[in-house]
Amino acid sequence: MSAAEVLARCAELDTLSARADGLERTHLTPEHAAANRLVGGWCRDAGLRTWVDAAGNLCARRDADLPPDARALLLGSHLDTVPDAGSYDGMLGVVMALEVIARIDGRVAAGELAELPFALELIGFSDEEGARFGTALLGSKAASGQWDEDWWDLRDRHGVSLHEAFHAFGLDPRRVGEAARRPEDLVGYLEAHIEQGPYLEEADASLGYVTTIAGARRFRLTVLGEARHAGGTPYPRRRDALVGAAEAITAIERLARASGGIATVGRIEARPGAVNVIAGRADLSLDLRAATDEERDALWEAMEAEISALCTARGLRFEARETHRAPAAPCAPWLQEAVVAGIAATGDLDPMGLWSRAGHDAMAMAAVTDIGMLFLRCFDGISHHPAEDVREVDVAAGLDALEAAVVAVADAVRAGAAPQRAGAR
Amino acid sequence: MSAAEVLARCAELDTLSARADGLERTHLTPEHAAANRLVGGWCRDAGLRTWVDAAGNLCARRDADLPPDARALLLGSHLDTVPDAGSYDGMLGVVMALEVIARIDGRVAAGELAELPFALELIGFSDEEGARFGTALLGSKAASGQWDEDWWDLRDRHGVSLHEAFHAFGLDPRRVGEAARRPEDLVGYLEAHIEQGPYLEEADASLGYVTTIAGARRFRLTVLGEARHAGGTPYPRRRDALVGAAEAITAIERLARASGGIATVGRIEARPGAVNVIAGRADLSLDLRAATDEERDALWEAMEAEISALCTARGLRFEARETHRAPAAPCAPWLQEAVVAGIAATGDLDPMGLWSRAGHDAMAMAAVTDIGMLFLRCFDGISHHPAEDVREVDVAAGLDALEAAVVAVADAVRAGAAPQRAGAR
Repeated sequence: MSAAEVLARCAELDTLSARADGLERTHLTPEHAAANRLVGGWCRDAGLRTWVDAAGNLCARRDADLPPDARALLLGSHLDTVPDAGSYDGMLGVVMALEVIARIDGRVAAGELAELPFALELIGFSDEEGARFGTALLGSKAASGQWDEDWWDLRDRHGVSLHEAFHAFGLDPRRVGEAARRPEDLVGYLEAHIEQGPYLEEADASLGYVTTIAGARRFRLTVLGEARHAGGTPYPRRRDALVGAAEAITAIERLARASGGIATVGRIEARPGAVNVIAGRADLSLDLRAATDEERDALWEAMEAEISALCTARGLRFEARETHRAPAAPCAPWLQEAVVAGIAATGDLDPMGLWSRAGHDAMAMAAVTDIGMLFLRCFDGISHHPAEDVREVDVAAGLDALEAAVVAVADAVRAGAAPQRAGAR
Repeated sequence: MSAAEVLARCAELDTLSARADGLERTHLTPEHAAANRLVGGWCRDAGLRTWVDAAGNLCARRDADLPPDARALLLGSHLDTVPDAGSYDGMLGVVMALEVIARIDGRVAAGELAELPFALELIGFSDEEGARFGTALLGSKAASGQWDEDWWDLRDRHGVSLHEAFHAFGLDPRRVGEAARRPEDLVGYLEAHIEQGPYLEEADASLGYVTTIAGARRFRLTVLGEARHAGGTPYPRRRDALVGAAEAITAIERLARASGGIATVGRIEARPGAVNVIAGRADLSLDLRAATDEERDALWEAMEAEISALCTARGLRFEARETHRAPAAPCAPWLQEAVVAGIAATGDLDPMGLWSRAGHDAMAMAAVTDIGMLFLRCFDGISHHPAEDVREVDVAAGLDALEAAVVAVADAVRAGAAPQRAGAR
């Protein structure tokens, strides 16, 4: 199948959306079920055995003539989206994985390639973005045995709990543990994904390999002042929580720029939220990323100190609650080498290595197996937006590179160069 | 009736609320109807003739032995509240008006005071705050003949239109024009109100007279950037609408402080509003006040220029839409004199004059008649908040002053010192 056909499949997935005016496909919705059915059908057409696991992840396996308990190399990404999403974040990696498995299968059948020393499995994760329940990576957390029982009470904006959503999707919440993969059953996890940043485009490169995935920390910041009459309260008496929050937002940007990290305030709420009442409270979200956990944590400490000081100077109170923390997930050196070899097979002998500023399913999978990631150049670094775009020529190169990377993984396994993980960490 | 009893009536009105955990009584709600019934009963107990006008305002008249077409001095304020309100903003002025009418009536009946040359009317306006339909002064705009037919389509947060709310309250929208008072029927409008600011408290004064009511201008400010992936988009590529909005908020405060005006951003919304997506759009409210319309308008021009410049520097677009504009409403000199005389009768021979930073029903009534206002000291300038408070001793002084001001108005009318307005302006 050509790169154009891969892109056509991504476009077909676009039609499975909760809204007519754009793409929105979130965890355990009817659209999600439809995406699993559509991709599952493509997988069966390619001769794979398919199932939906106990967490709603779509799975497909090329058993070939291997024993049923053979280890597997997982290839995949996610099938869910943010609201008003682009067509490629997640889906491209799933569709590419299927095409690469089909190509390998064809070459083995044709005698052009020796049978692999492992099964290939496609996985289309049910939730990476966390758009419905506010907690990300629910699909890959389940697949990596990191399920948290507290998540059952997470609710979507309509008040539906995750527990209820499992039932509505036809899943049994009590069996979610069955989705967990065992380290001893896995060779590794390889994911292709659009870069979601501008670095490959700036370097005029189609492809890059990922060195590590930065772990975000997320906070809910609260600034507390006093709600008072907008007109009647002169400046010396004002404790305006929204002005304090505004100073915090500009300080956050200044500190992040200076440090080389990235910080985003994407959400804000001022209360009581009336035109003629001074805000007594402002709540902000903060998403913080940097190349290493140490840089990120130092950045947060600087922000916390500065925001506390500016709030104190205004008679405001400042509180911060951490809502999410993920450690950086390094890609395994031997899988980085396989991806480098894959890219080299496309003619780029000195491929670019990047740290991923965005989170990925691979972060969760790192808990049970070694991970590697291939990045594809995307248009203007745009993602999480309908303008998200990828060139056909880059997808063609990406397919060739991912296929060659799988062959390199097979070579490494045969050569004993692939460390085997015996138990979960 | 004592000041303590006046405060007890305010406390009784507190119980007519849409919520159990605080006071919220908005336009044309069941609580509003209950407040009209309660205050109407008090008025009838005091011998007044009562009715609810075609806009839901509670009215009560002391006709005495005057001809039915005698001119009236209106005394009043409003019975609606903001969400999570205090007990005195509006209600205190209505309850005080009733007590002053009753006192005058008693003194005339006892032969201690000559019959007034005008009728006294109490008015409890149905909507001053605009909390339900977003447009303020609906009650006094109707009573002053300034109804705007476009308002029928205003909707509350449940989607109920003002037109529907009129019907539900038992009012006929087609007859709203009947609420309009004619200038030739009125002597003037006197309103007692808590200051909602700290100036009387700082001056250690119980009472003050209002020189003019500042007219607010309100705007909806929109900052437009680009929604992109929070992690993947480096700073040179970011056009973060929320950071632009934050800079605008701090600039607004700085310019207002420097000018002597007051500016408040009470509402903010960032879109798409996701933790991991850069805000592509931010909408802010802006409420702007100053002692004169000229100062206020100059302040807005300075803000508009500075916000435009800072947005341009960030690659953001800036749009502003005016949503409300009220001219300053000066109090009539002869009614200011009557209020000064009223305060002087309580022993304060050099009372403080203030401009009102807050809007009041008197602003609307100025379109049909002369206005005067008496301010009462309130605790720490707090208003639009449950901590709103007023001292009993100040209410006692306020009752005496308002009563004496009515007598001073009568003297001025008898002396021909009260200009008579022949027609609407």
